[in-house]
Amino acid sequence: MRKEHLLAPGPTQVPPDVLLEMAKPVFHHRTAAYRKLHQEVLEDLKAIFRTKNDVYTMTSSGTGSMESSVVNVVSPGDKTLVVQGGKFGERWVQLSKAFGANPIVINVEWGKPADPEEIRKQLKANPDVVAVYTTLVETSTGVVTDMQAIGSIVKETNALLVCDGISSVGAIPMETDAWGIDMLVVGSQKALMLPPGLAFITVSPKAWKAIDARKPAAYYFDLKKARKNIATFDNPWTPAVTLMVGLKKSLELIKQRGIEQIWKDHARLARATRAAVKAMGLKLFADPPADCVTAVLMPESIDGETVFKKLRGDHGITIAGGQDQAKGRIIRISNMGYVDDSDVVIIISALERVLAEMGHKFALGSGLAAAQQELMQKA
Amino acid sequence: MRKEHLLAPGPTQVPPDVLLEMAKPVFHHRTAAYRKLHQEVLEDLKAIFRTKNDVYTMTSSGTGSMESSVVNVVSPGDKTLVVQGGKFGERWVQLSKAFGANPIVINVEWGKPADPEEIRKQLKANPDVVAVYTTLVETSTGVVTDMQAIGSIVKETNALLVCDGISSVGAIPMETDAWGIDMLVVGSQKALMLPPGLAFITVSPKAWKAIDARKPAAYYFDLKKARKNIATFDNPWTPAVTLMVGLKKSLELIKQRGIEQIWKDHARLARATRAAVKAMGLKLFADPPADCVTAVLMPESIDGETVFKKLRGDHGITIAGGQDQAKGRIIRISNMGYVDDSDVVIIISALERVLAEMGHKFALGSGLAAAQQELMQKA
Repeated sequence: MRKEHLLAPGPTQVPPDVLLEMAKPVFHHRTAAYRKLHQEVLEDLKAIFRTKNDVYTMTSSGTGSMESSVVNVVSPGDKTLVVQGGKFGERWVQLSKAFGANPIVINVEWGKPADPEEIRKQLKANPDVVAVYTTLVETSTGVVTDMQAIGSIVKETNALLVCDGISSVGAIPMETDAWGIDMLVVGSQKALMLPPGLAFITVSPKAWKAIDARKPAAYYFDLKKARKNIATFDNPWTPAVTLMVGLKKSLELIKQRGIEQIWKDHARLARATRAAVKAMGLKLFADPPADCVTAVLMPESIDGETVFKKLRGDHGITIAGGQDQAKGRIIRISNMGYVDDSDVVIIISALERVLAEMGHKFALGSGLAAAQQELMQKA
Repeated sequence: MRKEHLLAPGPTQVPPDVLLEMAKPVFHHRTAAYRKLHQEVLEDLKAIFRTKNDVYTMTSSGTGSMESSVVNVVSPGDKTLVVQGGKFGERWVQLSKAFGANPIVINVEWGKPADPEEIRKQLKANPDVVAVYTTLVETSTGVVTDMQAIGSIVKETNALLVCDGISSVGAIPMETDAWGIDMLVVGSQKALMLPPGLAFITVSPKAWKAIDARKPAAYYFDLKKARKNIATFDNPWTPAVTLMVGLKKSLELIKQRGIEQIWKDHARLARATRAAVKAMGLKLFADPPADCVTAVLMPESIDGETVFKKLRGDHGITIAGGQDQAKGRIIRISNMGYVDDSDVVIIISALERVLAEMGHKFALGSGLAAAQQELMQKA
């Protein structure tokens, strides 16, 4: 009978309309019906990603699309430039190494964003860098990076700009073309309001040049194969048909609301969440904080893992704890995708009671009151 | 209002109970609930695959698990032995080449199985072959290969035996351990009665030795990462949670019926299908034919593509046509997974009428009568 509330930064809640759409009988993918669906989905994704570049869907976790953005453009021995300021920056480093590239790693303090000037400096010192790997929102820390500034720097060089938008695109502004993102990778289970299992990647003309100049050691994630198949709106491999059907539905919901309005909606909920935790005497871990996930620093005396466990065990709320060096020190509350005012009120109410039980001193209700002030404002 | 009938060799029909299970709210994968589900699913898969070896689930098409069985055991320059007797044998060749291996290709006439003695001969002449890549049922031709015989040969050598069981395992007998299959790859959207998006792979101790001796150029499909994560029943990357939930349900249905009974059920439906098309004066394309997909040779005067299109357009039935050299010459009828007597009657009835319209001479109803004789028999 207990209600479960999913407020982790992925997987996120899926609207009932999308779940029910996916419960319809499975159909074959080598059909006009699938190709029409695929074409429409790609058009909608381009609108959300703000790009005229090619977009591809792949059946994999987001990490699959990250791998695709590495294996197709990097050859063994190539130099890459990687921003590492959390778990997902680390993944970029691991991917570069796994496929024999030599990453120059820009280490960034957890909770802080990459400094665009450091990227400019490194690219000047290393004009042979093939691609710059970045993260729009580092989910492990909740920080958002100024991708527009980085784009303006990288576009003046021969290097490609690759951006992990898995935990952010669809929730906060991303202007793929205007900012000069050559490859944007996105996952289904975050702001796009779908279960995990689909990933997306955009490819700019500049990226295609790099891809066409290489014979990649790739097969499943080979983008040239994907390009060949997209001519007829096919996939190289059997696609996850039910997830594609769900995607069509979730994109319809997004279109109805409008992507710019959705960005504003996320900003409003994030403001309410931040105001609430600050009113409870807590501090934010990230600076600047992203508008899709709020990482909250726990007081010295409070173990974040216990907070996380009590929220789930006593209140049925799944958020995320901290990872690695942030384990026990932070909790992470997502407002990505199918989340509204009621979810913010639920998590803040439960968090107040958990922290009060654990001995944190603050006025019970102060978090909720602060959230209310923000929720009174229109997006 | 039209009823749609899916009888293609993948994706196949998904039971309503499974579809509805997947329509439940999404939950997080870093939870005790997911880990328990994962553990149970792996145990059930082992029972179906008849193996005590490790089994891994991955979020991808079947091709992803094929790639995994290549990148983890083959290094650039390694020699592989590949049976190529159709589209999926070709995929093994392409995979070997994509990752820098040198495949010795055993070309087999389409519709015929690999000759185990040819494999023995090649392994004797090439004792440095790292792995033998085979296909239990070559879906493009409908032929079944004697994997037990091949297993008895390969197990006496240093080579690994890798078997593509994507379009067959769960429908026809597969004795992974008894036959000496080192790596078996399976997909979700065939006999396991799920939508596409999950793939499976088994790894024998002999295969682990080969894997541990290498540093693969792999990341998403890195089996060592998967092994590390399975210790806590985790996946290295966010799993397709809804498909895993559906899998649990479909495995329950399979367990209820019993895998050996399901093999017999498939054999019975395949006998009925074969008897029907023979009674209509048609010939089988494959020898020996698999009990999960029936490839039917069209008469000289009949274009298989037209048959395929009329079945879909006029009767709402999706089967498969022929590919490449078999295009227009054959049609392929699947009885994999969630298929019963009613489906056989529906496809044979429609096929009779389509062929009669197209001028093929036979007694209308003769196919159905022959199917009836077989359907009178218990599995």
